[in-house]
Amino acid sequence: MESPPYDDSNIFAKILRGEIPCLKVFEDDHVLAFMDVMPQADGHVLVVPKTPSRNLLDADPAALSALAPRVQKIARAVKAALGAEGLTILQYNEPAGGQTVFHLHVHIVPRWSHVELRKHSGEMAKPETLVPIRDKIVAALAEAK
Amino acid sequence: MESPPYDDSNIFAKILRGEIPCLKVFEDDHVLAFMDVMPQADGHVLVVPKTPSRNLLDADPAALSALAPRVQKIARAVKAALGAEGLTILQYNEPAGGQTVFHLHVHIVPRWSHVELRKHSGEMAKPETLVPIRDKIVAALAEAK
Repeated sequence: MESPPYDDSNIFAKILRGEIPCLKVFEDDHVLAFMDVMPQADGHVLVVPKTPSRNLLDADPAALSALAPRVQKIARAVKAALGAEGLTILQYNEPAGGQTVFHLHVHIVPRWSHVELRKHSGEMAKPETLVPIRDKIVAALAEAK
Repeated sequence: MESPPYDDSNIFAKILRGEIPCLKVFEDDHVLAFMDVMPQADGHVLVVPKTPSRNLLDADPAALSALAPRVQKIARAVKAALGAEGLTILQYNEPAGGQTVFHLHVHIVPRWSHVELRKHSGEMAKPETLVPIRDKIVAALAEAK
């Protein structure tokens, strides 16, 4: 079963084009990382490759090779910034696989023992909650350099 | 909080050394992929880099760059072989993050609408269940070449 082609009207494409704002954590030539506005845990970050693809299945392998070390770098900073005990990395493909935005993205979710993941509630976190967390992650990234 | 160092007595290290068998799906210089013996869905495959690391946090970035396109290649074959509608990619770091075997690994889990993921039951799937699925994935990988 073939997947539909990439459609650049998705929200992450709009964020990449600067048409919609985001709480940016990291950016370079290959990826943009920003706060998930419906976090499943405090410090939930999304890493989005700039090369367009619908998901993992149709991605340029070279874009994936660039993506993976950047996910690591950001994951380390998220863990340090939040004082997390662990991290769960999630990547969803197609609706049956959990995907809701059809531009490839990787979820970095900080974890603590005995803290269950929150469900995607459909309610957006407030900027006053997200901005201080974003700032801590940006500081941890700067320190890691 | 620093993670413990890599310990090569973990079960995936033993599989990589050939001390414990696995139902192999794919192998090259960089990774070994095999059937998860406690599958959360039919066709659940694990991809393990040969370069030792405890998880994403301490991995060699070059090993991650090699890993990601191989996860893609195997994920495509899993989806084709199983006729899956989607895929969920999971990667767990530290016990709080869901990790139980302390050698970096990526879960490729085929998904279908209206089919919930099975919980890790602690019960092993029977080889007579897993082998025909493995054979289909290997055939899909051969066809993709």
